Amino acid sequence: MEFNLNQIALLIHGKVEGDGNQKVSRIDKIQEGQPGGISFLANEKYEHYLYETNATAVIVSETFVPSKPISSNLIRVKNAYIGFTQLLEAYSQMIKRSNSGIEQPSFFGEASIQGDGGYRGAFSYVGKNCTIGKDVQIHAHAFIGNNVKIGDHTIIHAGVKILNDSVIGNHCEIHPGAIIGSDGFGFAPLEDGSYKQIPQIGNVILEDYVSIGANSTIDCATMGSTIIKKGAKIDNLVQIAHNVVIGENTVIASQTGISGSTEIGNNCVIAGQVGIVGHIKIADKTIVGAKTGISRNINEPGKTFFGFVGFEIKEFLKSYAIFKNLPQLQDRIRELEKKL
Amino acid sequence: MEFNLNQIALLIHGKVEGDGNQKVSRIDKIQEGQPGGISFLANEKYEHYLYETNATAVIVSETFVPSKPISSNLIRVKNAYIGFTQLLEAYSQMIKRSNSGIEQPSFFGEASIQGDGGYRGAFSYVGKNCTIGKDVQIHAHAFIGNNVKIGDHTIIHAGVKILNDSVIGNHCEIHPGAIIGSDGFGFAPLEDGSYKQIPQIGNVILEDYVSIGANSTIDCATMGSTIIKKGAKIDNLVQIAHNVVIGENTVIASQTGISGSTEIGNNCVIAGQVGIVGHIKIADKTIVGAKTGISRNINEPGKTFFGFVGFEIKEFLKSYAIFKNLPQLQDRIRELEKKL
Amino acid sequence: MEFNLNQIALLIHGKVEGDGNQKVSRIDKIQEGQPGGISFLANEKYEHYLYETNATAVIVSETFVPSKPISSNLIRVKNAYIGFTQLLEAYSQMIKRSNSGIEQPSFFGEASIQGDGGYRGAFSYVGKNCTIGKDVQIHAHAFIGNNVKIGDHTIIHAGVKILNDSVIGNHCEIHPGAIIGSDGFGFAPLEDGSYKQIPQIGNVILEDYVSIGANSTIDCATMGSTIIKKGAKIDNLVQIAHNVVIGENTVIASQTGISGSTEIGNNCVIAGQVGIVGHIKIADKTIVGAKTGISRNINEPGKTFFGFVGFEIKEFLKSYAIFKNLPQLQDRIRELEKKL
Repeated sequence: MEFNLNQIALLIHGKVEGDGNQKVSRIDKIQEGQPGGISFLANEKYEHYLYETNATAVIVSETFVPSKPISSNLIRVKNAYIGFTQLLEAYSQMIKRSNSGIEQPSFFGEASIQGDGGYRGAFSYVGKNCTIGKDVQIHAHAFIGNNVKIGDHTIIHAGVKILNDSVIGNHCEIHPGAIIGSDGFGFAPLEDGSYKQIPQIGNVILEDYVSIGANSTIDCATMGSTIIKKGAKIDNLVQIAHNVVIGENTVIASQTGISGSTEIGNNCVIAGQVGIVGHIKIADKTIVGAKTGISRNINEPGKTFFGFVGFEIKEFLKSYAIFKNLPQLQDRIRELEKKL
Repeated sequence: MEFNLNQIALLIHGKVEGDGNQKVSRIDKIQEGQPGGISFLANEKYEHYLYETNATAVIVSETFVPSKPISSNLIRVKNAYIGFTQLLEAYSQMIKRSNSGIEQPSFFGEASIQGDGGYRGAFSYVGKNCTIGKDVQIHAHAFIGNNVKIGDHTIIHAGVKILNDSVIGNHCEIHPGAIIGSDGFGFAPLEDGSYKQIPQIGNVILEDYVSIGANSTIDCATMGSTIIKKGAKIDNLVQIAHNVVIGENTVIASQTGISGSTEIGNNCVIAGQVGIVGHIKIADKTIVGAKTGISRNINEPGKTFFGFVGFEIKEFLKSYAIFKNLPQLQDRIRELEKKL
Repeated sequence: MEFNLNQIALLIHGKVEGDGNQKVSRIDKIQEGQPGGISFLANEKYEHYLYETNATAVIVSETFVPSKPISSNLIRVKNAYIGFTQLLEAYSQMIKRSNSGIEQPSFFGEASIQGDGGYRGAFSYVGKNCTIGKDVQIHAHAFIGNNVKIGDHTIIHAGVKILNDSVIGNHCEIHPGAIIGSDGFGFAPLEDGSYKQIPQIGNVILEDYVSIGANSTIDCATMGSTIIKKGAKIDNLVQIAHNVVIGENTVIASQTGISGSTEIGNNCVIAGQVGIVGHIKIADKTIVGAKTGISRNINEPGKTFFGFVGFEIKEFLKSYAIFKNLPQLQDRIRELEKKL
């Protein structure tokens, strides 16, 4: 998409200084600005880039006074950073809106319905008895099984697989390759050492404003529901096992795994590569550092945990400082023993 | 699917107490029972839920004597838990059987054959020279390359990719998004610091009753075969590198990685986020705790390993208890030094 | 594909000793040689297999003198190992070349172009305004968004998803299920504890000769580009966050995660399940052992790091040796205390 500078100035309530008919089609960082792109200058630390950039245009504050000649066109706004984020939002909305209609071939099962304003990409698959809201985007190669409900304004990216009976809220975004509602990992051991699968007949519920990252896997419940509550944000390659509950506005970074039936509270922040055992509860506002293992309940809200088999961060750092000095510690003990 | 209570009673050899014409379409936990669902009561700890539940029906044992009035219908069977699992199995079988026939468009390459009773979803792809057994389900967006063999009663879920020359046994289940037979990670360093790919011409063999979790990746062998033996169960997001052998009935939990050419014995249990280096052997019945790293052979069967760079669990717990108290330990040494 | 031994001898500049009309269709390890397969003997340690193998043919060096009778046919070449790798290369090239043309149905958006000699599998999707080079293979279920550029001789495997605006070099290989250009994990906290997505408008650039493993995820930049430089090789299930830069010829093993805006140097080797925090720089030729966490800049090139919250490997091994002996260490301190 290409816009001229006059159009952009109108959008962000600014004034063009230069040639308003010049066109841009990209947003660049100012240090990487190239012809055809627009950048912004909000932090004076970056001012020197303004005099070197090849960007077609730069958004600056209306009070900004350049100290050297500038070859780019300027768009002056009250606050350059706010003007820039307005542009970013508008750009991002336009990209999202650019998908519409139904591409063919696509598959839409019997007794399924989709609301107005949506998009279905080629090779998308919707099974039977699905109810899909309005303005929902279902990208190419997305799979939606039977009896699935999807709320309004939700985006299902390319190659997402949503299995039978899942319930997806409004304003959710499920990134490419994520799997929602795969069977939980439940096997009953038999006497001969082999295992028999325990049927997994529950489902997954994503409440409103949930985001699930690329290639993450959310298993369905054995019975009942695996639930990701309102506003939770989950990164790429995360594993959420059967019957887990993730609280509202909880954030989970990449490659973390949550084992079966564990309940994570609201407003928690869980970093990457964390492992949390099954059947425990984590209090609200808990923070867990990267790579930490959590193996028991966390009852007190608002604490920070860090370290393998994670203990409280202050305790961990004390022990860890000594762990690094253990060779000297051992030397001191040897010294003592000699003296005695 | 909807059944009335008389039909369910017939299936699980029970007697209806109440209105046998009422219909249910879901199985719920008793504490979450809602109209249209059937629950069960096997453990007396949960008896109080029976008097509060809104479930349309509850399965109870024939000897059960309620202590308060009940609004749900009852189905009485010899053993409520066994009756419930019979219902669960039947329900699960019916869901699986509900896929049949061939949806269009789907792709089926030359000289490939598929046995009776199977299902192929829309946008499924089967390459050339494939031999697919009877009652095999190939869901939408599944990809099966050339020269692939698949046994009877196997389920290939949505979006699974099975690369050329793979051999899949009977009664296997491959969950959505899993990749079977991708190239092994083999590169030969060249003098200029760059790498040249070593051709990976082997394959993957899954024996009978193997389960592979969602978005897991099983690489093909450089030469010969990567083998997952009979009855092994592998969870989501697990990495199995080239030329690995996983023993019979071995269970591997989510996000674990097994490096190239390692052989895991039979009946092992490997927890989540474990890492096992390449070119080692792990004895039968070994148990490995979550997040453990295993860096050398385990020769004695039946041992449990736990901890970073994993050592035997009893040793680990001893060291770990002290590690947590290192600050006090250091204080005691300082005390000693002062006294001397 | 099936070849007779005379054809193979011609290819690798060898001479057949036996029946040159016999046919082979597989390359096997000598210890697993079966009729219809060809093996090689380069290392004298394996000589005894030559007298037992059922391989139809074995490649041996021209100077090799057998000490017992051999039932297989031989192909004699100057150097058996080099002859074998020539065969392997040729075989691997033939497999890759076997895909050609355009299978239907496939989707190819307006204003997109593809060079000569390529392949597009059934159910592959190419969006609008894409420029695809010559001899590019786009396998079944691959998704390529809008405004994507792909160089010559690149292979996009089944089910790969390449999002809008990505730039892929020449001679790249992207393995099944990998996601290139998914949104970065960027959310701004709001006052009520919820989060607002920060638009991710950058892209991903893969330079020439890059390999990305199965089901790995490479997020697009918030602004600018996430860059994987020339010759970098990335294994399965790896997470590369927004705005990361991976240096030339750097190798990253399975299940490793690199957080946002971190820059990894050239010729680094990063083992499996490593976690690297965001916004740091790792010097050229750094080696990081499996499961290590890296939390700060590494400025000196060519060092090896290992261990949780990774410190330099020699230091780590010293501390770790004592950590394992902490129970005895504590006993010795108790002894001292008693004596005083």
